[in-house]
Amino acid sequence: MPSLTLTPLPGFPMVQTGDDLARLILDALGRAQLALEDGDILVLAQKIVSKAEGRWVNLAAVQPSPRAEALAVEIEKDARLVELVLQESRAVLRTRPGTIIVEHRLGFVCANAGIDHSNVAGDGSNQEEWVLLLPQDPDGSARSLRQQLEEASGKRLGVQIIDSHGRAWRVGVVGATIGLSGLPGLVDLRGQPDLFGYTLRITLIAAADELAAAASLVMGQAAEGTPVVHVRGFPYPLCEGQLGELIRPKEQDLFR
Amino acid sequence: MPSLTLTPLPGFPMVQTGDDLARLILDALGRAQLALEDGDILVLAQKIVSKAEGRWVNLAAVQPSPRAEALAVEIEKDARLVELVLQESRAVLRTRPGTIIVEHRLGFVCANAGIDHSNVAGDGSNQEEWVLLLPQDPDGSARSLRQQLEEASGKRLGVQIIDSHGRAWRVGVVGATIGLSGLPGLVDLRGQPDLFGYTLRITLIAAADELAAAASLVMGQAAEGTPVVHVRGFPYPLCEGQLGELIRPKEQDLFR
Repeated sequence: MPSLTLTPLPGFPMVQTGDDLARLILDALGRAQLALEDGDILVLAQKIVSKAEGRWVNLAAVQPSPRAEALAVEIEKDARLVELVLQESRAVLRTRPGTIIVEHRLGFVCANAGIDHSNVAGDGSNQEEWVLLLPQDPDGSARSLRQQLEEASGKRLGVQIIDSHGRAWRVGVVGATIGLSGLPGLVDLRGQPDLFGYTLRITLIAAADELAAAASLVMGQAAEGTPVVHVRGFPYPLCEGQLGELIRPKEQDLFR
Repeated sequence: MPSLTLTPLPGFPMVQTGDDLARLILDALGRAQLALEDGDILVLAQKIVSKAEGRWVNLAAVQPSPRAEALAVEIEKDARLVELVLQESRAVLRTRPGTIIVEHRLGFVCANAGIDHSNVAGDGSNQEEWVLLLPQDPDGSARSLRQQLEEASGKRLGVQIIDSHGRAWRVGVVGATIGLSGLPGLVDLRGQPDLFGYTLRITLIAAADELAAAASLVMGQAAEGTPVVHVRGFPYPLCEGQLGELIRPKEQDLFR
């Protein structure tokens, strides 16, 4: 039976700016006695990629714009953080106390531009003053990591970077793709027959987001100790995908 | 290492009205040589539950209301199908050609009230004329199945019923919970400290939906042959959950 198996890699170290993530992942796989095979996928929490890339910002150095100041008062949030959210976004969709729902510069819709105070720490400075932005180019980060891991292992792999996103109509966050390489974002089954010979209709599957949710489930939120999940048994052929596949074009979006 | 393993059960038969799903699942587990253990979860595609419950409607017997007739012209869809969509829904949120996005009577937002022509067949009649509604009470169906499976196995189990839902801002469908029993819908980590002693913020996790997406990934869409997925290693304690946990109250929903 073709099972899908997701294994969080134990004992992953705290990631520092400049760390070699490929090396850390290979070490963690070694400790877990997991040998990479063709078709395996590594799913990474956004935070370790951002940390390795040094995406820290010191709030003390942020000068809020008048727009950020006004919005900060309205939603009762730190104006410097609001300024960063605006800088990282293309558009503000909605606001409510404590939350700004934006179209991120990377294209997806998320809360507070993916910037979070919790579970992050600056490099020895006052932690409360530092925040962590999303990676500059998550698809690029995933591609680079995939290439390094493929070179080291000699295997055909996928790499995915995920974050936790809220949903429009449902409570709670789920894992969602913010960057990928070596696996499809969407799988298009349109035109294929079903068991009765009809043509399938609902058949554009957000396979990467389904995998992101699955991996998020075993990563947990509190446990920064397991920010990397090894996946075996992804049921679709690997191919080069990108985040853009998963983003609904604004003009086709009925819910803005 | 605590892996999460999802195994689609092979050789599941075509489900007919009145079939004993618990029996079919136990048979399928037996064929797969999978012995149930405490904490295991069975995830079921909505279609087999609806079929077992005989949720077929013959379109030829449906009399569209004037409202359905008008909407059908507007979105170029069968007026009888539109009538059923409206009957199964509390509110219409948006429409576009071929699609009505509704608040289903069960509470969640989905396209066309989860009614689909594809990959379903009536009981020997002209297939094109028959459509399949969602189960009457998916939480209740899950509860009943869980009780039967627990009684047969002597183990503490979870049962989840899923469908494929679109998302507001992202392309493609993902598995989503429409009924559950024996596992939490949401996991609330609020108030728990992170690695740095801060209090976690984004910590209301839609664990059941993450599991639904994971299971959907291995079910596929075309493969009605694997509408049941066995899950081992769900990382949160089992408890009695319900669909309602996952539904955002209308008054807190910024995207209607």
